[in-house]
Amino acid sequence: MAAGENIEYMFGIVGIPITEIAVAAQAVGIKYIGMRNEQAVEAGRLYNKLSVRPSSLEVIPAVIEKAVRTSMYGRPGSCYIDIPGDFVNLEVNKSSIKYVECCPPPPISMAEHSAVSKAVSIIAHAKQPLLIIGKGAAYSHAENNIRKLVDLCGLPFLPTPMAKGVVPDNHPNCVAAARSTALQHADVVILLGARLNWILHFGLPPRFRQDVKVIQIDICAEELGNNVRPAAVLLGDINAVTKQLLEEFSKRPLKYPSNTEWWKKLREKIKNNEERSKALALQKSLPMNYYTVFHHIRELIPKDSILVSEGANTMDIGRTMLPNYYPRQRLDAGTFGTMGVGLGFAIAAALVAKDRTPEKRVICIEGDSAFGFSGMEVETICRYNLPILIIVVNNNGIYTGLNADNWKEMLQYGDPATCVPPVSLLPNSHYEEIMSAFGGKGYFVKTPEELQKALKASVADKQTPSLINVMIDPQSERKKQVFVFLS
Amino acid sequence: MAAGENIEYMFGIVGIPITEIAVAAQAVGIKYIGMRNEQAVEAGRLYNKLSVRPSSLEVIPAVIEKAVRTSMYGRPGSCYIDIPGDFVNLEVNKSSIKYVECCPPPPISMAEHSAVSKAVSIIAHAKQPLLIIGKGAAYSHAENNIRKLVDLCGLPFLPTPMAKGVVPDNHPNCVAAARSTALQHADVVILLGARLNWILHFGLPPRFRQDVKVIQIDICAEELGNNVRPAAVLLGDINAVTKQLLEEFSKRPLKYPSNTEWWKKLREKIKNNEERSKALALQKSLPMNYYTVFHHIRELIPKDSILVSEGANTMDIGRTMLPNYYPRQRLDAGTFGTMGVGLGFAIAAALVAKDRTPEKRVICIEGDSAFGFSGMEVETICRYNLPILIIVVNNNGIYTGLNADNWKEMLQYGDPATCVPPVSLLPNSHYEEIMSAFGGKGYFVKTPEELQKALKASVADKQTPSLINVMIDPQSERKKQVFVFLS
Amino acid sequence: MAAGENIEYMFGIVGIPITEIAVAAQAVGIKYIGMRNEQAVEAGRLYNKLSVRPSSLEVIPAVIEKAVRTSMYGRPGSCYIDIPGDFVNLEVNKSSIKYVECCPPPPISMAEHSAVSKAVSIIAHAKQPLLIIGKGAAYSHAENNIRKLVDLCGLPFLPTPMAKGVVPDNHPNCVAAARSTALQHADVVILLGARLNWILHFGLPPRFRQDVKVIQIDICAEELGNNVRPAAVLLGDINAVTKQLLEEFSKRPLKYPSNTEWWKKLREKIKNNEERSKALALQKSLPMNYYTVFHHIRELIPKDSILVSEGANTMDIGRTMLPNYYPRQRLDAGTFGTMGVGLGFAIAAALVAKDRTPEKRVICIEGDSAFGFSGMEVETICRYNLPILIIVVNNNGIYTGLNADNWKEMLQYGDPATCVPPVSLLPNSHYEEIMSAFGGKGYFVKTPEELQKALKASVADKQTPSLINVMIDPQSERKKQVFVFLS
Amino acid sequence: MAAGENIEYMFGIVGIPITEIAVAAQAVGIKYIGMRNEQAVEAGRLYNKLSVRPSSLEVIPAVIEKAVRTSMYGRPGSCYIDIPGDFVNLEVNKSSIKYVECCPPPPISMAEHSAVSKAVSIIAHAKQPLLIIGKGAAYSHAENNIRKLVDLCGLPFLPTPMAKGVVPDNHPNCVAAARSTALQHADVVILLGARLNWILHFGLPPRFRQDVKVIQIDICAEELGNNVRPAAVLLGDINAVTKQLLEEFSKRPLKYPSNTEWWKKLREKIKNNEERSKALALQKSLPMNYYTVFHHIRELIPKDSILVSEGANTMDIGRTMLPNYYPRQRLDAGTFGTMGVGLGFAIAAALVAKDRTPEKRVICIEGDSAFGFSGMEVETICRYNLPILIIVVNNNGIYTGLNADNWKEMLQYGDPATCVPPVSLLPNSHYEEIMSAFGGKGYFVKTPEELQKALKASVADKQTPSLINVMIDPQSERKKQVFVFLS
Repeated sequence: MAAGENIEYMFGIVGIPITEIAVAAQAVGIKYIGMRNEQAVEAGRLYNKLSVRPSSLEVIPAVIEKAVRTSMYGRPGSCYIDIPGDFVNLEVNKSSIKYVECCPPPPISMAEHSAVSKAVSIIAHAKQPLLIIGKGAAYSHAENNIRKLVDLCGLPFLPTPMAKGVVPDNHPNCVAAARSTALQHADVVILLGARLNWILHFGLPPRFRQDVKVIQIDICAEELGNNVRPAAVLLGDINAVTKQLLEEFSKRPLKYPSNTEWWKKLREKIKNNEERSKALALQKSLPMNYYTVFHHIRELIPKDSILVSEGANTMDIGRTMLPNYYPRQRLDAGTFGTMGVGLGFAIAAALVAKDRTPEKRVICIEGDSAFGFSGMEVETICRYNLPILIIVVNNNGIYTGLNADNWKEMLQYGDPATCVPPVSLLPNSHYEEIMSAFGGKGYFVKTPEELQKALKASVADKQTPSLINVMIDPQSERKKQVFVFLS
Repeated sequence: MAAGENIEYMFGIVGIPITEIAVAAQAVGIKYIGMRNEQAVEAGRLYNKLSVRPSSLEVIPAVIEKAVRTSMYGRPGSCYIDIPGDFVNLEVNKSSIKYVECCPPPPISMAEHSAVSKAVSIIAHAKQPLLIIGKGAAYSHAENNIRKLVDLCGLPFLPTPMAKGVVPDNHPNCVAAARSTALQHADVVILLGARLNWILHFGLPPRFRQDVKVIQIDICAEELGNNVRPAAVLLGDINAVTKQLLEEFSKRPLKYPSNTEWWKKLREKIKNNEERSKALALQKSLPMNYYTVFHHIRELIPKDSILVSEGANTMDIGRTMLPNYYPRQRLDAGTFGTMGVGLGFAIAAALVAKDRTPEKRVICIEGDSAFGFSGMEVETICRYNLPILIIVVNNNGIYTGLNADNWKEMLQYGDPATCVPPVSLLPNSHYEEIMSAFGGKGYFVKTPEELQKALKASVADKQTPSLINVMIDPQSERKKQVFVFLS
Repeated sequence: MAAGENIEYMFGIVGIPITEIAVAAQAVGIKYIGMRNEQAVEAGRLYNKLSVRPSSLEVIPAVIEKAVRTSMYGRPGSCYIDIPGDFVNLEVNKSSIKYVECCPPPPISMAEHSAVSKAVSIIAHAKQPLLIIGKGAAYSHAENNIRKLVDLCGLPFLPTPMAKGVVPDNHPNCVAAARSTALQHADVVILLGARLNWILHFGLPPRFRQDVKVIQIDICAEELGNNVRPAAVLLGDINAVTKQLLEEFSKRPLKYPSNTEWWKKLREKIKNNEERSKALALQKSLPMNYYTVFHHIRELIPKDSILVSEGANTMDIGRTMLPNYYPRQRLDAGTFGTMGVGLGFAIAAALVAKDRTPEKRVICIEGDSAFGFSGMEVETICRYNLPILIIVVNNNGIYTGLNADNWKEMLQYGDPATCVPPVSLLPNSHYEEIMSAFGGKGYFVKTPEELQKALKASVADKQTPSLINVMIDPQSERKKQVFVFLS
Repeated sequence: MAAGENIEYMFGIVGIPITEIAVAAQAVGIKYIGMRNEQAVEAGRLYNKLSVRPSSLEVIPAVIEKAVRTSMYGRPGSCYIDIPGDFVNLEVNKSSIKYVECCPPPPISMAEHSAVSKAVSIIAHAKQPLLIIGKGAAYSHAENNIRKLVDLCGLPFLPTPMAKGVVPDNHPNCVAAARSTALQHADVVILLGARLNWILHFGLPPRFRQDVKVIQIDICAEELGNNVRPAAVLLGDINAVTKQLLEEFSKRPLKYPSNTEWWKKLREKIKNNEERSKALALQKSLPMNYYTVFHHIRELIPKDSILVSEGANTMDIGRTMLPNYYPRQRLDAGTFGTMGVGLGFAIAAALVAKDRTPEKRVICIEGDSAFGFSGMEVETICRYNLPILIIVVNNNGIYTGLNADNWKEMLQYGDPATCVPPVSLLPNSHYEEIMSAFGGKGYFVKTPEELQKALKASVADKQTPSLINVMIDPQSERKKQVFVFLS
């Protein structure tokens, strides 16, 4: 459900008992998008901020207003409205319905002055500071102020997966390519709307220093103090608090020097890692590895593409290898790693882009296992003629987190009748034919040259959905360093 | 999970964190079937007889024994075992695990004598009796005794969808083709393991006589008396109680005459309906209608095929048009009408058939909307090389329960950008290419001749999965009579 | 809620928003009993057979019929109807309500013949048989047939707490006083409606023989096979199956001799235990111990009293020391040991007794901790003038399952300000004054003589509620043997 | 659970399986308070901010820290920790437990400047302003700044029940005695930590003006916009935002004149209502009415007493008749009207007072129905020797919300056997004897003179728990005005 001044889109399935609701929605100007499976839409159900069941038809507008408002106010999150099935056939007197205006934009709160001042002092004394930008920064549209802060103070920064692009990934202060080193040695960490969950190793040794000072900036009071005891807490809207920090720094200027040991160490690591990635990316052996595939994608897709990603290795390596230059243009399975949400995200993004930024392409990069969870939504994509480019990175379903010994063991226990190991998929599946079955364009590629050609053709055709099925080495392993520090 | 002496199959997904469990299962001789989406397996979760979460690794065998036993004892039903995610990486001392033998077959109970005697009296005085055979009869393997009962007493009978084949559908006493007449006028209804739920219109007028006498035979005490107040209740295993009835009838013989007004009325209605179906089936106009499609399927598939079916019209009309000659060879979405279970059922049936009755084919007849819920399982079918024949009855997702006015209204509110009505799917989708994408055979058919040819080829090839995508008239309407009485 | 032809009683609280419901219930002839706390009535909520929330006023009669029926059919159990709060003020057209007759008595099922025959064979070959009578026997009114079975076959028997009185506790074959010996050495155990739960130590060693053969007779299929693998299972109504056993034994007579080693061993143990109990009961030291108190209660209350019991030691020792001579006249906290249900049970029993068996007294024996959970219901007892006799066995809240070392430890950590150990209650609390506060009679007793006098007076006054507060030794320990085998 | 630097108190029941936990708690210096019924403590369970079940012993400290922190950060609320029963007997290596420091005081957030400025403008233009002080003001310790705001700007104010005393009830600007007039005619309402729930009639007509401008100040973003669309929203800590308002008013001074029509109207209404209350309070007829009782209580208890209150009429009328002079010294059943919490609140308050402000008395004023929900906690009060004064306002359980016609109807349907109307309690119950049963002092009073005497004696004795059972007219009706506007 998209909200702003009005609800523009409603997602549901095609079939009874939803037919009547779909027709009714269309009648009042809401675009009803019929999906093939309700799972992607329902994915977040367990983690809702609000679950509510209207007790009568009359209160539905108020319930929807509350759900939309709750989803946007405070920490954003999904809300669940459970409309009893038998409501579909009830009638109500129009005059008894109370129209409810859509809510205004979220209220803004700021941190108290003493907390801001304390944070600035700590940052001023940091020897090895690190700014971690989280999705809260993206939600609060803090990109301009955070960019100013980075530039003004010269701080090294690291985005979380959903915050990529708040400051462009190619900004000289971005240390994403030295992620593990940066986390491990920082003496002061500033969390700008980022949570210390498993993606950040809970802020704990050995991934963080035992004595690291954490400055936590968050919109949600209950988040403050989770997992580590912070040195300073700033409760408020990320953008508003960033502005407070900028004001404070304007009074007490700070410019972290670019020639410190800390910067030297980080830059060395970045150089090292980028060289290793590049070496992997340029390997000529076939089948291709992940790095080669992502290298070519990066080179050939428009910089302002909206990137959607899911899958285990595919999502992890893609976070490193595919840069974002703009905020809020990357969607992935996120904190909970839920599989099957990718195509749903891509469809929603493409619908919004169609209306507002028709020049932007949606690129959906999927592991082959992940694609299986909702592959039938390709039909939805074709039905609404959304020019999404799906790239299936196809290693026959093998999860390479397993080492060679495990792999042999697996083969040994394969079903004797078929010799298919229990944790792999059918080799050489032609997922691209699922796209052509519904009228889109499909490409089956095995070499860098075929991949380049297919990418160019897909990017050039701005009208037609397409799917590139890229065969890679089922034993393609991620770089040791990446594996150890990201998983 | 198949149970008997041992668990033979385990169904799960392909991917982490299930990999380790799959390998472990294979190691102890259980065949692990990796599906593409956990939804089909999870479908019945809300309706479980038992939901249990083992508190330690040691108790898992006992918990599984209890779940398997509970699923089979009393009224059968699924059980849900929730193994905490972090158990996957725990270790346990082998000696502390208590091995638990698999449970014996379910215990059998019988009705009390006076209830049997009362039921026989009521049947003896019936003017217009009707025997309704339910899935409880199939579960209890009561086919031989029920056949004897039908033959001995000359009663007209009607199977519920899941009980089709307990007595063959072509038995002369089967009045399925006069279903609504039989229900509406019977003065005594004998429910043999059938429930008075929505499929049987709750046993209420106007679909049933106000004064109908219901004899309820069920394994589950709590089921007795639901929705109507029965004239007699017989609590016990369906097969055991049928034997008790046979014994009682051997003492007090009853042969319901075949020349009564009741039989005359039923036979007339049957003849009438069959002629109307035949006329529809033989219509030459293109696109084909449902009846033509099912007519050819009936003619060309082996009589002992295992039939799986889902979809709205597809399932409803298929219940009438596709006869079953053997018990327990038909699976459909059942009481709850859950979409997305068809391919999962077909895979499970094909795996069991492969081991035990390799000569039997599994035919899975799907509406195109229904197919979309789990179409990616075609990859699973191909990966395990299961010779399932999928027939997609493709009306472009239109649900014809809607009448012509609704249809126009729908078109009117279609998304102006795309002119796709909100409740239809992409026209002419080539679902058969999803099969060929994974190495199976796909057929796209538009005419009776093409359909016959594809069916013959699919049936003849006993090694290869296949999918026949049958284009039918999006406005193909079901016969009025069928619509009114089945929906 | 009492059910039969009609609902006679409704229990609720006194206060809004229940007032309107109470008035309405009275208006249609249901006796509304206003309790002081809804907890006793709600105690079993988590363990309901059925939880249902009517969707409209019109369906309430059908929902109540289903709940009453479900509570009585199959294994009995409570059902929960959740009527939305806002229904209280809704109106409904009388003519739209469908009147539903109350359900007939539960249907009866029997075991299959071969199972009966197998069970009889196993019993015939038993060297050390033991019949365990469970509450299922009481529910099915099987007392006459079980008594015949015991007398006919000469089997030693043991009742579970809720089955006491199905065969009188003073029957010569009752081996309750040798409970642990009987369980530990029996080679064949016949479970007549009893479950192998924690009260029966799950049927496992060392409390049972490793090679014990269990014959399980139960109304509930899913219960069969729980915790042990039975040698024979008989699925059916306990009374009906007992009749089947009697018939089988009439064909294959069996009389277990009374002069076996098994009987000798059991009788010796019984004699031994009874002498020890007697010795304890006759101890002259003050404060009194549990055995002395129960000895006098047993001597002075009418044999046909309805006994209600709760508390830890109080309930456990009372199970041994207070005999029941009639079935279904004992209520205790049962399988789940829920505290606070005693006075609710007593009030319900007294209301039913008032109408049907006004000569019977309800005696409610409570530990002082247990009494605290719902002691305010004494006001309810007085308000309805129910001649219940409450006996509070008052050890100042001490649970003597703790040993002497624990006890010292407790004292050591007592709140220094008050010297009250954290797990005891206020010494010498005058609970009897709670009774006199509401107009009943209260007795505070410290000696056997005072206890006898109070019991005689309370029993003699058949009109007035009374409470005897019996002070016992806070360190009164249960007999070692009882403690070890019952806890 | 009281939290600050440390947990000081733990509340639980007396009995197994809690014994071991109680002993362990005492061992580490936590005072374990053994209650008689877990209901009062559990009352808020459904409305918890956090429900969590630790997965191992090792994580319990972290779970408790999170629960304590979550209960205090953001909008305060209870948290529920469910420790599995079998943890009680597990052992853990001390070294594997990670000690977690207790969290710092809650972080403070402020409103954004533009919102503050907007609010000040609206207030400056108000013709009939009203400040509503809610419990959020009490939680944030905003009393000094709110007092300044009231004095500086001359605004009329109204406290919600739990906010009474933030500014003393006898402040000249308090318009509580003209509550309904104030709400109904205000053109600008400033909500200072108060919610527009049912206690404030959801902010809707006819209790509020259709065109009322609401300025909402709250710590919780999701609360903003509930039920009405506010003219201005200020998201932040109540005390911090009040300071922001004061700063803004220091720049743009505002003094609402005391001679407006609005003040005139409010003062007239106050005078009127106070005279009517006084007249009722001085009525000489017996039995006494509510106003007489509360009048004497007000006169004779110390001004700094901590007041606890529950019951329907008792709580409602007490809110008006008993002034608070200090913040956070009043506890009642609150938003949800849960019965049975009063004595639990009183015990917790008395324990804290004993340590910190031993000169303060806890006065617990209970309706007789409400008292019944947890009356047995009187034993707890006496066991810990807490000098609580309980006043039971005893109308024999009658809820006078019923009118005379209903009352007659009730009598008519009373149980014929006993003539007790279904919604009243036992007349003349001597609740004071429950106090004397446990060693406290009990008073039974029927006249103003007896009431005065009992109050004086109870107040004078600072060591002993006492209970005054005040008999009032069962038909004592609340003043019409109060009834209409408060219920």
